[in-house]
Formats: sequence, C-alpha cells, structure tokens
Amino acid sequence: MVTRSTIMDTNSFRAEHAAGLDKDTMRLTERRGHLLGASYRLFYRRPVHLVRGRGQYLWDAEGTKYLDVYNNVASIGHCHPAVVEAVHEQMQLLNTHTRYLHEGILDYSESILATTPAEVNRAMYMCTGSEANDLAIRVARAYSGGTGIIVTQEAYHGTSDLTSGASPALGSGQPLAPTTRLVPAPDHYRLNDVDLGDWFAQEIKKQIDGMQADGIRFAGFLADSIFSSDGVLPGDAGFLKKAVDVVHRNGGIFIADEVQPGFARTGEAFWGFARHGVVPDIITTGKPMGNGIPVSGLLARGEVLAAFSDSIPYFNTFGGNPVSMAAAQAVLKVIHEEGLQEHSRVVGARLLAELRTLQDKYECVGDVRGAGLFIGFELVTDRNSKAPDKALALQLIEMLRDERVLTSVAGPYGNILKLRPPLAFQAADIDWLVGALDRGLARLGR
Amino acid sequence: MVTRSTIMDTNSFRAEHAAGLDKDTMRLTERRGHLLGASYRLFYRRPVHLVRGRGQYLWDAEGTKYLDVYNNVASIGHCHPAVVEAVHEQMQLLNTHTRYLHEGILDYSESILATTPAEVNRAMYMCTGSEANDLAIRVARAYSGGTGIIVTQEAYHGTSDLTSGASPALGSGQPLAPTTRLVPAPDHYRLNDVDLGDWFAQEIKKQIDGMQADGIRFAGFLADSIFSSDGVLPGDAGFLKKAVDVVHRNGGIFIADEVQPGFARTGEAFWGFARHGVVPDIITTGKPMGNGIPVSGLLARGEVLAAFSDSIPYFNTFGGNPVSMAAAQAVLKVIHEEGLQEHSRVVGARLLAELRTLQDKYECVGDVRGAGLFIGFELVTDRNSKAPDKALALQLIEMLRDERVLTSVAGPYGNILKLRPPLAFQAADIDWLVGALDRGLARLGR
Repeated sequence: MVTRSTIMDTNSFRAEHAAGLDKDTMRLTERRGHLLGASYRLFYRRPVHLVRGRGQYLWDAEGTKYLDVYNNVASIGHCHPAVVEAVHEQMQLLNTHTRYLHEGILDYSESILATTPAEVNRAMYMCTGSEANDLAIRVARAYSGGTGIIVTQEAYHGTSDLTSGASPALGSGQPLAPTTRLVPAPDHYRLNDVDLGDWFAQEIKKQIDGMQADGIRFAGFLADSIFSSDGVLPGDAGFLKKAVDVVHRNGGIFIADEVQPGFARTGEAFWGFARHGVVPDIITTGKPMGNGIPVSGLLARGEVLAAFSDSIPYFNTFGGNPVSMAAAQAVLKVIHEEGLQEHSRVVGARLLAELRTLQDKYECVGDVRGAGLFIGFELVTDRNSKAPDKALALQLIEMLRDERVLTSVAGPYGNILKLRPPLAFQAADIDWLVGALDRGLARLGR
Repeated sequence: MVTRSTIMDTNSFRAEHAAGLDKDTMRLTERRGHLLGASYRLFYRRPVHLVRGRGQYLWDAEGTKYLDVYNNVASIGHCHPAVVEAVHEQMQLLNTHTRYLHEGILDYSESILATTPAEVNRAMYMCTGSEANDLAIRVARAYSGGTGIIVTQEAYHGTSDLTSGASPALGSGQPLAPTTRLVPAPDHYRLNDVDLGDWFAQEIKKQIDGMQADGIRFAGFLADSIFSSDGVLPGDAGFLKKAVDVVHRNGGIFIADEVQPGFARTGEAFWGFARHGVVPDIITTGKPMGNGIPVSGLLARGEVLAAFSDSIPYFNTFGGNPVSMAAAQAVLKVIHEEGLQEHSRVVGARLLAELRTLQDKYECVGDVRGAGLFIGFELVTDRNSKAPDKALALQLIEMLRDERVLTSVAGPYGNILKLRPPLAFQAADIDWLVGALDRGLARLGR
C-alpha cells in the first residue's frame, strides 16, 4: 500500500510564511494571522488579493487580470448574471425552509432528476458537499446494515468528522475511521499493462474481503468518477462498470461523489459517472451546483434512501430553501441554454490537444489526460520511471501565478497540475494558459 | 433518567398524511411525495404554501398574511433590504474562497470578535450550525485529548453524523454516540426547590465521573444557554457559571451553541451565554447569522483552536466567502443600527407580560418564561402535578395556524410553545398573537 501523503493544499501556506510581500498583501496576511484560525491557508507564496470576477477572469486589487483555470465553484462563470438575478429576485420575495410548501424545491427536483438515471428518483438538499457525503455514508450504512466504506488512496470527500475519516487526502494529521478501507487509484498512466476495469474491481474485492475478515460489514464504495484528488484520472469510458458490479454483488452501494465531475464538467455527459454506463445508488453534489451559493444535494434510489428516512429524522435548515433552489435552477438553465456541456467537450478537447504539444516538447511532461474541461497535467523527473516531480509542479504553479494564470496541484505527490477552469473558459483563452506553461517549462523543465 | 423522546417536529407530518386539503396544497404535497426523500416533513396538518415574506410577516399563495412567531433564520426580518442589497452587490463583484485574500472575511471577523469576550479571539466559517458544532466537537477532542461530550436530555446540535450522535432530540431512531452523556435540562419550572446552579453543576459532575468510570475521557460540555430544544429554559442570569467551572476544573471545554440564543435574540446581551457571565472556549453560530444566507461560524480561544488547527487540515469551500460575509456583516449592521438587541429586550418583556395574563386566566398555562424575544409557553394538564399537555399544545398550534399565527413546539413532551419571532416583531403584533392564543385557549383549554 502506498504511504498516505497530504495532497490538500500542496501550494498553500499559512499567513506566517508570508515575507517579502507588498504592503497590501502584508497587511491582509497579518490581519488573517490575528483574526482567523490557523487552519486557514493561502494559495501561493505571494498570495493573490482578489476583488472582482467575471466569467473565466478574476481581477486583483490593483486591477491586474487573471485567467482562472482552477475554480469549479463559479462553474458557469464568475458572477454569472443569470444566477445573480435569480438570487436577487428570490431574496426579495421569500427565503424560508422546507417545512412550508414552496414550488422552487419541487421545480428544481424535477429538473435535476430529469438528468439522472430513472432509478435515481428522490432528492434531498444540504449546503455543502461535505454535508451531502456525510449523509450519503449514513444512508449507505442504514441500507446495507454494514459500516465499512471503501475510498481511493488520495480521496477527499469532506470536512465533517465522518467524511474526514474517509478522506485520506487530509494526510496523517487526520486519522481515517477504523471502518474506512483504501484502494489504489485507477492510475492508468502507471497501470498501462493491466485491464484497468478488472484490476480496479479486484482491488475493491480485496478490500471487501479484508474488512469482512476484520469483522466489518461492507456498506459501500464512495468515489468521484474522475478521481480528482488522486490526480485527475478519467480512464477509458466504461472501466468503472466492473467495480460497481462487485460493490453490488457484495451487498454494498455505490455513491457517486459528483462534487467535482458533475454539472457538465466532463463534457461527454452531465454527470461524471455517466461516461461509465453505471447507475449509482446515491449521487452527491456540491461546489458547482449553485455557482457559489452554498447548496448541495443527495439524489438517490428511493428504496435506498427509505432505509434511512423511515427511521432517522433529518432536517437541514438552509438546505433546499427558495434562494438556493433559485440559484441552482439558474445554473441548470444556463448549462442548457449556453450549451456548456458540449462547450466543455469541444474546448476541453482543444485544450488537451494543445497541452499535448507541450508533452511532445518537454520530457518532464509525463502525461496529459482529461475529460472535458477537467485536465490533469502530470510532471515527472523521468519518463521511464515516471517518478513524480513535485518540486517542478510547485515552481510551475508559482510561475503561472506570475503569468496571471491561477491553478493548483493534485495527486498523492502533488506533481499533477489540476486544470479545471470555469466552463466559461474559451478557446481564445488557450493561448494564455498554454503560452504561460510553455514559458514556465522552458525555464524550469526539461 | 427521563426516557428519550422525539421533540423534533412534533407538529410536522409527512406528505402522505395530507388529506382533505385544497387542490393547491394537495398538488404540492403530492409532488413532494414523488420527488423528495421521505425525511421531508411539513408543519401542520394543513400545510402552508408560502410565497412572500417581509419583516415579521409571511404571505401564502392566496395572499393571506401570517404573523411569523417562529423563524429565527430571518432573524432581522424576512427579506431585509440591507441583506438583499449587500448580497446583490457582492454577488456582482466576486464570490470565491478563502485561499485568496479578501477584506470581507477580515472586516467581519473584527466586527464579530468585538462582540465576544477578549479570550475568544479567532474565527472560522462554515455554512451551517451543524458544520460549526461538528468542528467544535472535533476541536474539543483535539484540545482535551478526550472524547466524551455532555449535552442536555433533549438537546439538538446538528444533522451531521457526529452532531446527530450528540442530539437526543432526534429520538430513538438516531442512536447517540457511545461517548455522549446526557444531563437533565435545568428545568426551573419543575426544579423550584433546589439551587439551580449547584444542582446543574452536580449533574454535570456526575456524568463526568460516570464517563470516566467507563474509561471515556471528558472532552467538553456542549449547550445552548437557553436550552431551546429542552423547552426554552433561560433560568436566572448567572446560574450556568458553576456548571462551566466544573467543566473547566475537569479538563473539558465549554462550547456555547449560539445558533438559537445568539445575535441579540435574548435581549439582555448579544450572546446568550453573556447573561451568565461565563467565557466559553468555543462559540458556535448558525441560523440567524446571515438572515437566510447559509453561513455559520466557530469563534474560539486561540489556544484551544490551535490544538486542532496545527495538525488537522480544515477547509470549507463556501465558508467565509465574500457573499456570505457580506450578508453576515449586513446583519450585524442592522442589529446595531436598528437597536434590535434593546428592541428584543423591551418588546420581549411586554410580550412576556401579556402572555402571563393568559397564565392568570387559564389553569392549563403552567409556565411562561423567556429572555428577549425567545419565550416558552408551557401547557400542563394540572398545575400541581405539572403534567405536560402535549395534545393541547398540538391542537393549539393548529388553531394558531388557522388564526394565521405560525409557531411550533419544544421540550421533551412537545407541550411547550416555542415563541421565537423575527426580531422585527413589534409591540403592535402582540395583540394578534395573544388574541389568537386567548381564543384558542378559551375553546380548548381550562
């Protein structure tokens, strides 16, 4: 088993690391140090003070414009007017909870359930992806009668106590729950001599058997189908099917964590799992659902959810309120009207092709892979050994920042650039990103 | 030990209970049944279809006006223009996360920390009260090295796995965590022959000793200082001090869950705990903080928080984002500019006095108590035995609904009306509420 390592925030720093900064940055980082808990980290050695956003662009306090290649919360574009207006309109009318009747939650539920397989036919709403995954694990347990949860080696599923215990990406400071078992990620860059589907299904079976030998009954497999924290690993469409079959044959449920790949991101489909022709028992959502308004959801097969809902009360005060539903409905409408799924597929493919020209040019670019506008750009010290080059990735991230391109890293070694721009990213933006990468690699790479 | 019972949603129903309703209500409840998880419950046998809110008033789809005497989320008033405008302005500018520098989170942190005791000097932000309490318990554990958490008999602290396990109010369907211990609530209506402070401190000490006998190290005491779910029990100012002292002497921390009493609600102070002259180690916030925008906070003594922050990564994607901070800042500004704390004290006292005239008039009104605009109105079958009259409370709630007054119940027996209007509630609204109660009691009560 690979040693657990911290991939969260590999290029983030505490305020006290700030030094040699301009006055404004210094003042703000010092204030953070005095006011906020030490958990707060900043991206970059030279943090960015943002004040404005629009589409795929962000501006700092001095008016400098940045290309956002990282933030999937503002998924349809920063400050999209359709969401701004929908929220403004609803906020002036009413914003209360789900113990009163309201059309908004019903209209949205119809809209979102129209995008899922027919079996997934019930919706619940929370405020964060963490809350959705926390509830999903509890539902999995209530339905299966087991407690054991399988996740991948570097998975990240949330900040609550329960989801942190199923998030090895948080590193050794955060113990895993005794009921959590890890499978290696389907790293198709390194596992090129195996049938990925068979191999992954076998790894899951091993962990199911292992937990059963330890007296832990299997509850479910929780995964983001693009394995974002593991380093952005889309794999061939369909490879996940055998793994999901093994999960079902062994009495567990499959929870598709769509916080990262969902909402048209992967281009081929609205949901990430759809590329694999599988039907999840539960779908969890989060970040991109409200384009910045805190709203998340749990969509499930009615009979799976019933095992929980029939016995355990659950009420989320803000979840599904009229304002969050208005924001979420506006996001869906924009995805449809602006054709963002097809846009993500087309522009993502062009970006991927351009990034592959850098792979041809620089030995240190080991692999470039992706689905839609979700791309992993992997840096290695050597193409034969495929040894991760974390130092280069970090230098490159800082250099991109100087070229006003914002992104970050992923993977167990922090050597993979995670390129995940708002879907407002245009073909015309490719040159800025690829040019900056080219210049950075020319200076730092091989 | 009192038997655990479900107080959550005593007057709420599943969609399938709907019968004999008008067409619109029928249609919406049926849609809910088909689309939402069965956890969703509605208030009232004849649910209310709300479409508009302003201040302390709500309107249904037919234009009927209701007096809201229950919702503390829209704490400064439904659709308060100051919050609507602050959110609208910020949504047009920028809404991203805390890994970039932004003034909003720092300005708000200064504002909110100016309201806390000096020792409480660090802030963190989440989206829901559940997330704040989930983190608070984890911080308590990291700091104390223990795991045992004490809460009151009918406490409710959240919907996450961890907080549900410390929420006996959820009833027998939701098992308590093995590390949770319960103390009886400081029910001063029934405990009138004891020194409440001594008695409560002793009850806590008993549970600390009990958990230690079971090999569980004490981590902390988590309580809402007005004991809302236990039936709204403000007690005399200061009675909580001895309990907090016992907690500290035994190596635990005191977490003040201010989701209910905070933000000027109790009138005498900005925070509920302040009535008792105690300094919490952690303050958690939620519902009223953003007047409906999902934002919550954890405010803590720096050294307590450090035990967690130094080792365990925590990042909440939406927490502390510029829009939620703008909403929260607007709420603070309105509380100050409109003098809502003093308003709550004055109008709350007048309401309390008026409600006590009903106590003089009807034998079944056993007790009326409160702090500011947070009042418990307790119904009993008999003043000598003080036996709870749940049936009467439920009938009264339904009758109030027919008189267009919205409220609900609390307490282990669901026999206490929880009167907790938006702080926009005016002295002129008292007649509507008290008149409706009077008519209801004349018909149903004794």
